[in-house]
Amino acid sequence: MASLAVNNVRVPGHGGLTSLTMHDGRFADAGAASSAHGDVIIDGGGLLALPGLVDGHAHIDKTLWGLPWRSNSAGPRLADRIANGVTVRAGLPPVADRAATLLDAYVANGTSLIRTHVDVDPDGGLSAVEGVVEAARRFAGRIDVQIVAFPQCGMVVAPGTAALLDAAIRAGATVVGGIDPAGIDNDPITHLDTIFAIADRHGCGVDLHLHDAGSLGRWEMGLIIERTRVLGMQGRVTVSHAFCLCDGDPRIDALLEQLAECRIGLATVAPNTVDPLPLERIVELGIGLCLGQDGIRDPWSPWGDADMLARARQMAWRSDYRHDHDIERCLEIASTRGAAALGVADHGLTVGCRADLVLVDAANPAEAVVSCPPRALVVKAGAVVGGTWASTNH
Amino acid sequence: MASLAVNNVRVPGHGGLTSLTMHDGRFADAGAASSAHGDVIIDGGGLLALPGLVDGHAHIDKTLWGLPWRSNSAGPRLADRIANGVTVRAGLPPVADRAATLLDAYVANGTSLIRTHVDVDPDGGLSAVEGVVEAARRFAGRIDVQIVAFPQCGMVVAPGTAALLDAAIRAGATVVGGIDPAGIDNDPITHLDTIFAIADRHGCGVDLHLHDAGSLGRWEMGLIIERTRVLGMQGRVTVSHAFCLCDGDPRIDALLEQLAECRIGLATVAPNTVDPLPLERIVELGIGLCLGQDGIRDPWSPWGDADMLARARQMAWRSDYRHDHDIERCLEIASTRGAAALGVADHGLTVGCRADLVLVDAANPAEAVVSCPPRALVVKAGAVVGGTWASTNH
Repeated sequence: MASLAVNNVRVPGHGGLTSLTMHDGRFADAGAASSAHGDVIIDGGGLLALPGLVDGHAHIDKTLWGLPWRSNSAGPRLADRIANGVTVRAGLPPVADRAATLLDAYVANGTSLIRTHVDVDPDGGLSAVEGVVEAARRFAGRIDVQIVAFPQCGMVVAPGTAALLDAAIRAGATVVGGIDPAGIDNDPITHLDTIFAIADRHGCGVDLHLHDAGSLGRWEMGLIIERTRVLGMQGRVTVSHAFCLCDGDPRIDALLEQLAECRIGLATVAPNTVDPLPLERIVELGIGLCLGQDGIRDPWSPWGDADMLARARQMAWRSDYRHDHDIERCLEIASTRGAAALGVADHGLTVGCRADLVLVDAANPAEAVVSCPPRALVVKAGAVVGGTWASTNH
Repeated sequence: MASLAVNNVRVPGHGGLTSLTMHDGRFADAGAASSAHGDVIIDGGGLLALPGLVDGHAHIDKTLWGLPWRSNSAGPRLADRIANGVTVRAGLPPVADRAATLLDAYVANGTSLIRTHVDVDPDGGLSAVEGVVEAARRFAGRIDVQIVAFPQCGMVVAPGTAALLDAAIRAGATVVGGIDPAGIDNDPITHLDTIFAIADRHGCGVDLHLHDAGSLGRWEMGLIIERTRVLGMQGRVTVSHAFCLCDGDPRIDALLEQLAECRIGLATVAPNTVDPLPLERIVELGIGLCLGQDGIRDPWSPWGDADMLARARQMAWRSDYRHDHDIERCLEIASTRGAAALGVADHGLTVGCRADLVLVDAANPAEAVVSCPPRALVVKAGAVVGGTWASTNH
């Protein structure tokens, strides 16, 4: 593969202008690229380089992105929204096309990796998983897509779902999902035992939606920790949302210590009405943490925009961060730290890492988060895949 | 004054395409403009027309907008932020220039009216008020600016401030402000009596910052209601922030009924960590309500962007609104309802109102709020003052 060098860029933590050289899809030592060898050389014009952005919690199969505005028709309860999603999706264009339209926006916004929870239920079967697999195939090389087989409608309450989850792993999902073992499925032991058994059988990861708040959610968190330990699944389990860690209860810290010990990661979407996770303590304990968009303009809600820089801003704003180092932590969660939580350790602007980067016009990462400037250049695995540079210079 | 007609636009609530005709700075009956008379005729291209946007609570004297990124240097407490603001401002360009830069952004974003609270304190005297008066003068005809004389550093605790507030009204402020009569000034009776006396003497309005939450804030709200009644200031008092109405306490509704009875308005900035005001109930009771940016990229925080469509989105998102009519309520608060709360009743897209409008590419007001599209055309008092139309067509 040809080399790429982006000269005259600023890299956070390095003083002054530098060059980022890429070879075989990874960051290489400076000097590896040369115009004499026919390699591509780009003048970064003094812009700021950031690592590729990472969405750790999406639902791209549900999206209406790029379609005409659709007024939300869901009732107010979680159950209403689940039922409405099933009703609405029947009349939509194919999952593969809708998901691809959204992946296109993700790439344009500088995203190099997403994890998406894809509906698996008796009504839709594996069709959504197959659609997202197809969309990911179309975007291979431009963005990496991790697929979670997600029992949105419950599992115990939706007979046949467990077998479909198992089949979804064979169809291209690499992680098995779950949802509120108590609050939605009403049978937490069966729910968790089934999901962990599927993961154990396939050697794949687990990523559970846990909206259940307060003491109920914390009790379920204990069940998840127990199964992670017993099955030796340390480092392969994620809990998404985890609202039960957001209410400031004094028992939360002991749970966080257990999560750290079992290397159970957390995914948050920096939500609007639930208080933020205790981000500083989570980072201090070294717990895996990623940030996501959740649904994007879908039958659940009109919110979300496939822009992880804007989502990092949302996280920083909701946490009332005002200082640069706090704001930059949110960008880290939306890039390098988030990738690590998804099992991708070789993410970042250092030699040996995947050559995923974004150039923006900002003084530093804090300004990039606050201002969310246009993406001037988007590089994935050492190849230019987007940015205003691509559209204006070539 | 020449007439202006914007043809082929969609107006919320009217089916199909229509024309908006303006004469002498106000919306006129259709047909008043004619190219034969040398009037300006613009093709709206099927875009959506919205009323001019309104910011009911800003601090444009404090802004660093347009200046190089400045890392926040304030400590964590309210007192630290107040002190930091005074320290930092000493080294900044003149208030008039900074405020003008921000007004330029407001106009570009389709804002036709703002109310800004301007610091008045013994250290700075009237310099900030004079600077904002000068900036407003430069932007006369493009945006209307209401100036509140604001005792940011307290009044009782900062001797000399009361006389300066009085002088500020003579220098161009039209509203007298206040701040946490208990929490900051530590002498609620003196604070409120002084401010209401200044307002009574000048026949001007009152707009008080009330961050004091819970039972303390509710008690102070009672004092404000009492003074409004006694002095016959119904319809001329605003309480900004009013966090004491945000915690769901059962005693809040009785206070809201008294606010309605005394026609005391509320201003909110849809904040990040305090729960939203009970918006539906406030609207139901007919209480005046406006939305604001608060500080914009200033020594207090890096947040804010002079875009009231984005702020309406923030309000809708924080209130977890998902349905069109709920989202549109936030736009109404950021335009017509907000203007009425500021004493400007003739705001909106109807005949006789000031000819302030914005054109955007959106199916309806809800999509405009969620997507925050670029402003295609900005008209103030019947004259084109901004928008991509102005920059590309002329």
